[in-house]
Amino acid sequence: MIRTHEAGTLRIDHVGQRVTLAGWVARRRDHGGVVFIDLRDASGTVQVVFREEEHAHDLRAEYCVKVTGEVRRRPEGNENPELPTGDIEVAASEVEVLSESAPLPFPIEGSVNVSEEARLKYRYLDLRRQQVAEALKIRSRATYLAHEVMREHGFVYVETPNLTRSTPEGARDFLVPVRLQPGNWYALPQSPQLFKQLLMVGGLERYYQLARCFRDEDLRADRQPEFTQIDAEMSFVDEDDVIAVAETLIGRIWKEILGYELPTPLPRMSYAEAMARYGTDKPDLRFGVELVDLTEYFKGTEFRVFQAPYVGAVVMPGGASQTRRELDGWQEWARSRGARGLAYVLVKEDGLAGPVAKNLSERELSGLTAATGAQVGDAIFFSAGEPAAARELLGAARLEIGRRCGLIDESKWSFLWVVDAPMFEPLYDDRGEQIGWTSVHHPFTAPKPEWADNFQDHPGEALACAYDMICNGMEIGGGSIRIHRAEMQQRVFDVLGISKEEAETKFGFLLEAFKYGPPPHGGIAFGWDRICMLLAGGESIRDVIAFPKTASGYDPLTGAPTPITPEQRKEAGVDARPKAEPAR
Amino acid sequence: MIRTHEAGTLRIDHVGQRVTLAGWVARRRDHGGVVFIDLRDASGTVQVVFREEEHAHDLRAEYCVKVTGEVRRRPEGNENPELPTGDIEVAASEVEVLSESAPLPFPIEGSVNVSEEARLKYRYLDLRRQQVAEALKIRSRATYLAHEVMREHGFVYVETPNLTRSTPEGARDFLVPVRLQPGNWYALPQSPQLFKQLLMVGGLERYYQLARCFRDEDLRADRQPEFTQIDAEMSFVDEDDVIAVAETLIGRIWKEILGYELPTPLPRMSYAEAMARYGTDKPDLRFGVELVDLTEYFKGTEFRVFQAPYVGAVVMPGGASQTRRELDGWQEWARSRGARGLAYVLVKEDGLAGPVAKNLSERELSGLTAATGAQVGDAIFFSAGEPAAARELLGAARLEIGRRCGLIDESKWSFLWVVDAPMFEPLYDDRGEQIGWTSVHHPFTAPKPEWADNFQDHPGEALACAYDMICNGMEIGGGSIRIHRAEMQQRVFDVLGISKEEAETKFGFLLEAFKYGPPPHGGIAFGWDRICMLLAGGESIRDVIAFPKTASGYDPLTGAPTPITPEQRKEAGVDARPKAEPAR
Repeated sequence: MIRTHEAGTLRIDHVGQRVTLAGWVARRRDHGGVVFIDLRDASGTVQVVFREEEHAHDLRAEYCVKVTGEVRRRPEGNENPELPTGDIEVAASEVEVLSESAPLPFPIEGSVNVSEEARLKYRYLDLRRQQVAEALKIRSRATYLAHEVMREHGFVYVETPNLTRSTPEGARDFLVPVRLQPGNWYALPQSPQLFKQLLMVGGLERYYQLARCFRDEDLRADRQPEFTQIDAEMSFVDEDDVIAVAETLIGRIWKEILGYELPTPLPRMSYAEAMARYGTDKPDLRFGVELVDLTEYFKGTEFRVFQAPYVGAVVMPGGASQTRRELDGWQEWARSRGARGLAYVLVKEDGLAGPVAKNLSERELSGLTAATGAQVGDAIFFSAGEPAAARELLGAARLEIGRRCGLIDESKWSFLWVVDAPMFEPLYDDRGEQIGWTSVHHPFTAPKPEWADNFQDHPGEALACAYDMICNGMEIGGGSIRIHRAEMQQRVFDVLGISKEEAETKFGFLLEAFKYGPPPHGGIAFGWDRICMLLAGGESIRDVIAFPKTASGYDPLTGAPTPITPEQRKEAGVDARPKAEPAR
Repeated sequence: MIRTHEAGTLRIDHVGQRVTLAGWVARRRDHGGVVFIDLRDASGTVQVVFREEEHAHDLRAEYCVKVTGEVRRRPEGNENPELPTGDIEVAASEVEVLSESAPLPFPIEGSVNVSEEARLKYRYLDLRRQQVAEALKIRSRATYLAHEVMREHGFVYVETPNLTRSTPEGARDFLVPVRLQPGNWYALPQSPQLFKQLLMVGGLERYYQLARCFRDEDLRADRQPEFTQIDAEMSFVDEDDVIAVAETLIGRIWKEILGYELPTPLPRMSYAEAMARYGTDKPDLRFGVELVDLTEYFKGTEFRVFQAPYVGAVVMPGGASQTRRELDGWQEWARSRGARGLAYVLVKEDGLAGPVAKNLSERELSGLTAATGAQVGDAIFFSAGEPAAARELLGAARLEIGRRCGLIDESKWSFLWVVDAPMFEPLYDDRGEQIGWTSVHHPFTAPKPEWADNFQDHPGEALACAYDMICNGMEIGGGSIRIHRAEMQQRVFDVLGISKEEAETKFGFLLEAFKYGPPPHGGIAFGWDRICMLLAGGESIRDVIAFPKTASGYDPLTGAPTPITPEQRKEAGVDARPKAEPAR
């Protein structure tokens, strides 16, 4: 090692020792012939004092230097209790510039606001900032804990292929031309789903992996074209077994990294209840404010808007005092989500106000606060229509209320399982006509035992043996018990309108595998980026990804993606035509 | 859990207990009304006895079953000491078929030879074979140990991108069209080399990763288009620091998995010595037989073939008694490696024999056994020509001698470091004319300190600060101290004939990063597949890859790669033209 000590580890015990440090010039202060430099390395920072200015005269910000000197107690009154090394300083006797730094595009120290584009382009400088590096270290610790827990539970770490065949996860695949088999392409996996099920057929019983997944999705704010899952699968288990392992894993991580004791077993809420009470399958329970179902209440109403299959409401505490502009803002907010608007009633001292109130009958008005639990000073927001869409809007309004009213206790953790999701949801065409069914999870998800025989007769009601782990309103993990009988799988394909030919083409190899004594099995996958973001207190998964891309998949650092040359194109076989039958 | 116990864990202590097991029907033996079934799960096998035949009558090989019964001591004389569960059996009272199995393409039990194509196509059945599953479990354990060691040494696990820009590793990149930026392509990384160096610039100081790498190389027997490295990088270190961590890592793994104590510090041999003594930069030291340099000995010879810049020999113990056919076989072997043949002399009781002997002078013949150390009964093989090619042939002959003569002790481990490789090697055109220089490792490898200032003046002699870990004649890890000064990097590019424009295009972002106080750094990458193969006693890296591909990159299981549809092609933007300037 070039150095004898790490800068951030020096303490009063080291006083009198001669040390050699290596790191970066973080700050520099000149005081009449004496130069103070904060020397930073991965362990922290220490103050280095240069008595003779000539040694320090060419040291600028972010120069990489090696310094030898003696550790000494800081002069009385000069201690810095905020700094672990604040009792001491290093009196430099030798200094060597290991490398110089050009003027920086943005300062490393201090909390200067830097555009994300600049941060990503100079990510290596961004990473020198303590908070940014800390997020990666937290991720590393969490990853280690995951390995530890899974190993303790007898899971075998297996790496599955990244150059493979399309996986049926619903998003688009990234494709890779194959030079050695011109005209043929690999797909990058959207998840290891099929491979982990094959491992169960292979008798491995307990598999896990830190798996890179690739999904070619349209632009969304906090998505990356590649992301990481902690992916696990188990044989001979039921839902409770998978849930128990998942709770141990998450419990250990939250405990060790944040000192938070996960209240296990976590509460479980049915999908139906979550939708009814919170308008979402990932409710944030850090605050109250629940949806109120007013369908019955408004039965027979003469107000056209409320003559709908579902009418619901959500109450905004103190919302009656909002300005006209704020109330208009809500309408805009609702329209930006694709709704027509957000009907509301304001509960004033002297009665109910707002445009909707005029349309309601005396009876409807008089019981409304009791029916919704609204107090004087609150606003009541309504949504009416198909239950799914109307609840979704109310659920989003609820979250928005939580934010605007400061109801969310950011120091709290809200963990729960949402279980018993529907197996299928309607598939609509462009005109909104139902043309069939699609899987809520994926087509290998097993029905709840009570639906095993007849889910195909009631696709809209059948429930799946699926479970999602929700934290603070985000899905951080999800899984299911899988179908392991060909006959049942065929019935699912029938409901989904997947023909035998299509099933054969897409995942014939999985169906073939299921002919050879597949075990009952199930599993779960955790969104690792999101979990690490929560652990690090980040605002975006980009905070816990070393080299993230922008929403359009651009990497400001390397400039990827780039055009390819005609030679690359030719050589990679991009334009080759496959032979009639691919070479087997 | 569907079961109460794992089959392979039952012992005499369990006698009298009622247990429920779940697993596969491994073997079945019918004995007059009594049916014996070996029930296999991931933990092992136990014998299950069905008194009443009706329970067992439909149980065939590889049916997945759940069995409830009582553990009892086997009748005296029926114990099987080879089996951990051999003292007991389970008297079945209930059985449930969890899933049936179609007739198998090959038997799971027993050591039947199955074609690799069939094994890969039905990999999930192959994985039910104990040895195959065991290899994956060893890999998993080794991976865990790697995490443990790296964590103990303060390394931060960082995941680097798989969708990125070309990396300069010498092989071809796999390319990925980018739908959201039509006409632009990602490259899959050949290694995380550039990213790990950026992390060092970022001040992370200690990075590691279990990294998937992608190289689009031509067909070679034991290559995969994707493979795994344990990749690490450290700042403020010299060669010895990286080597120490590497030895700890490999030492821990060999110790814990094989009980083998790595003799650290491992011996280090210079590249030059390895080439001179063993004709290779990855010598297998499990046996002797060294190359003998006879250039001086044959100086002034009249034998044309030996009038060469280098003449060397290797002795085959007992080789004099080879048949004419065997000796001809050596010629063929040499020609298949691109040589003209393999000159030889046989050391007989009555003198030296063979065609070459006739061409040598009396003096040359008389001292030959002394010069080569050959004994009566041995054969001496010669190679003459340019040192590199001639030594390579002799090195290969040495290995072949080791194999044919059974000199290799397969129970031994031979670990060493080969250090001080040349920085550059000559680059030849099609006609064999040297047209420049190419990097032996990669262009970021630093020279040895003594070559720091003048490597550019002696590119053929300059030595690199590089180190390869060799095990049993295979390179299992390799690394170097990197260049961290732009000025030195520029001199390397100059030697390599890389223009400023080319350097800018290929890795401009790294050069840019190096402007901002890069630390001295170095690292290593281990070939994880190969290491796991050695640990598992496999013959191919395919033995330790769950779902390997054939040499042509074909996956017999999923059928990947496949043609894509015109819609996929259009949607992925395969044929889009990039805008003149890619969107930044």
